[in-house]
Amino acid sequence: MLISESALRTFTQNVFLAMGCSDEHAGLAADVLIQADLRGIDSHGVARLVGYVRLWEKKRINPNPNITIVHQTPTTATVDGDAGLGLVVAPFAMRLAIEKAEKYGSGWVSVRNSNHFGIAGYHSLMAVEKNMIGFAMTNASPLVAPTFSNERLLGTNPICYAFPAGNYPPVVVDMATSAAANGKLEIAQRSGKQVPEGWIQDANGDITTDPHALKKGGSLLPLGGNKEHGSHKGFGLSATVDILSAVLSGANYGPWVPPFVAFLEPPNDPVGLGIGHFVGAMRVDGFRPLDEFKANMDNWIARFKSASTVDPNQKVIIPGEPELEAEADRKKNGIPIVDAVWNDLKGLAVKFDSPLTP
Amino acid sequence: MLISESALRTFTQNVFLAMGCSDEHAGLAADVLIQADLRGIDSHGVARLVGYVRLWEKKRINPNPNITIVHQTPTTATVDGDAGLGLVVAPFAMRLAIEKAEKYGSGWVSVRNSNHFGIAGYHSLMAVEKNMIGFAMTNASPLVAPTFSNERLLGTNPICYAFPAGNYPPVVVDMATSAAANGKLEIAQRSGKQVPEGWIQDANGDITTDPHALKKGGSLLPLGGNKEHGSHKGFGLSATVDILSAVLSGANYGPWVPPFVAFLEPPNDPVGLGIGHFVGAMRVDGFRPLDEFKANMDNWIARFKSASTVDPNQKVIIPGEPELEAEADRKKNGIPIVDAVWNDLKGLAVKFDSPLTP
Repeated sequence: MLISESALRTFTQNVFLAMGCSDEHAGLAADVLIQADLRGIDSHGVARLVGYVRLWEKKRINPNPNITIVHQTPTTATVDGDAGLGLVVAPFAMRLAIEKAEKYGSGWVSVRNSNHFGIAGYHSLMAVEKNMIGFAMTNASPLVAPTFSNERLLGTNPICYAFPAGNYPPVVVDMATSAAANGKLEIAQRSGKQVPEGWIQDANGDITTDPHALKKGGSLLPLGGNKEHGSHKGFGLSATVDILSAVLSGANYGPWVPPFVAFLEPPNDPVGLGIGHFVGAMRVDGFRPLDEFKANMDNWIARFKSASTVDPNQKVIIPGEPELEAEADRKKNGIPIVDAVWNDLKGLAVKFDSPLTP
Repeated sequence: MLISESALRTFTQNVFLAMGCSDEHAGLAADVLIQADLRGIDSHGVARLVGYVRLWEKKRINPNPNITIVHQTPTTATVDGDAGLGLVVAPFAMRLAIEKAEKYGSGWVSVRNSNHFGIAGYHSLMAVEKNMIGFAMTNASPLVAPTFSNERLLGTNPICYAFPAGNYPPVVVDMATSAAANGKLEIAQRSGKQVPEGWIQDANGDITTDPHALKKGGSLLPLGGNKEHGSHKGFGLSATVDILSAVLSGANYGPWVPPFVAFLEPPNDPVGLGIGHFVGAMRVDGFRPLDEFKANMDNWIARFKSASTVDPNQKVIIPGEPELEAEADRKKNGIPIVDAVWNDLKGLAVKFDSPLTP
């Protein structure tokens, strides 16, 4: 099933409007989701729309949040998202970081009382448009066990760094800090395939390749997979995301992060408010003239693109390249939607009496 | 061979003085190396002293650098290390970042024209002492191939995040962005053991467990090991370190980073000055009251320390814990020095007519 960007955008916007979001918030939230679909990150696009709706139905998402700055210095702030959509709370925080960076060189905002913010890359790229370096990260529902543990204590806690370049497109490092993102697991589940060793463990902490192990009490593994291969580093990165996003802002951290799925209740002993994000922006020309930086970035990219390769048919991929290729294709040819997601969207179309055509 | 902290410190300081460093710089450089040895990071302590001396003999290290700020805003700066020891240039940069953070909430300093800065954790912890969150990273001699390449284009490019806690010691995530640090490879080489698959590839890009493969044209692998296990993430992190440290400051990046070993000449077509670092500091109370943050950090640490474990004898390790355990032991019992390093130090004792006793 292929659907045009504009049709999917209008539908998504209408769903957020039907939830009671303002025009501005509905447009922004839809834009974050559609960008994910355009960029080929299907797990974080409209596939999640029904999830946001279900959380709203459970009154765990506030469609009209009063987003406030609760603490700040010239270059730092904590924002309270008032239980709003992360899709609008995170852009608010990034706009604040950019304003601070415009005045003082850099800006850093920790966010509490938010919800799932979509793809980290969307928020980082807001800074890149202003010739800044963008940072974005978020904690998430606990699915990942620390090294040596069989307990789910961390989310897939993504981290994103985005850098403007000159003639080349921006370099965008946007990655889960687990060995594999949950979306990859879902693909294996649908296709009935086993997953590689090092992605997941069973409830006892034994190695497994069963993509359904998570549902049987298993857990995802941090980037690295096991200690010998550096999983303590993946754990350390994930911990960093959790601390900057939640311990610093006063959100829930570790196993207290409320689940994204509406059928699981949040812990009844919260240690903070909602989930947490952390975003930042640094002006490139706070360090060196912008044209010099961009020229060096282009040279950096060119050198890595021309690296000698193991397989002559597989070039080195610059972080951010696959997303741009997907975007070019999908803007032209439409966005592919798998059947399960299409059925969810059709359900929303009925629920909100909102037309949806491929 | 065990040597006391004070004897090793005095000897190291004397070597730097003999190189022509000022009292202040010799004391500081020695402190950075001794802290590495105390914290159990033997590969980055006095084991490297002979390396710094050889670079100085080749006039690639300036013992009396005029370290300058070449560009700045209220919260950002680029520092030129004047080819000095990274061991003194990086602390200069971190002091500047801390000063900026004291005034404006955060401070970020990119560094060019420097040399190897020792352990990243030393510099991050300078911020923690001021109740700030500390960031430190550096690029390094190219040993690591990007995903899909068999060419050494990146260093082991370490990254460190350090967070103050309350009753617990600070959380310090200090990690090479390669699957294994070069030091671990050296241990395998000395002991004649094979290394795990996923650490290293041979010159053709084929999997190998030979710890000597690097000398035969092989390369280290990014964290993750291969694409299936997320090596594109390790590559992305390493690229981030390279860009923030060198493209942002005007240092050499990628394959142009000058080698640490004096027997290899730097590339004759440099793209910048020396090697690059990036350090930063953010005031915790720029986001929320310090006591609230510390109480939450303690709760975070306590929860992860008490996590259910796969092996009852192997608890979850909080980042920074092993280093603190080593420090307690070594401050009391002395610092172990392997024979090869002891012989190097004896050589330096003769060269500089400086007494060294265990």
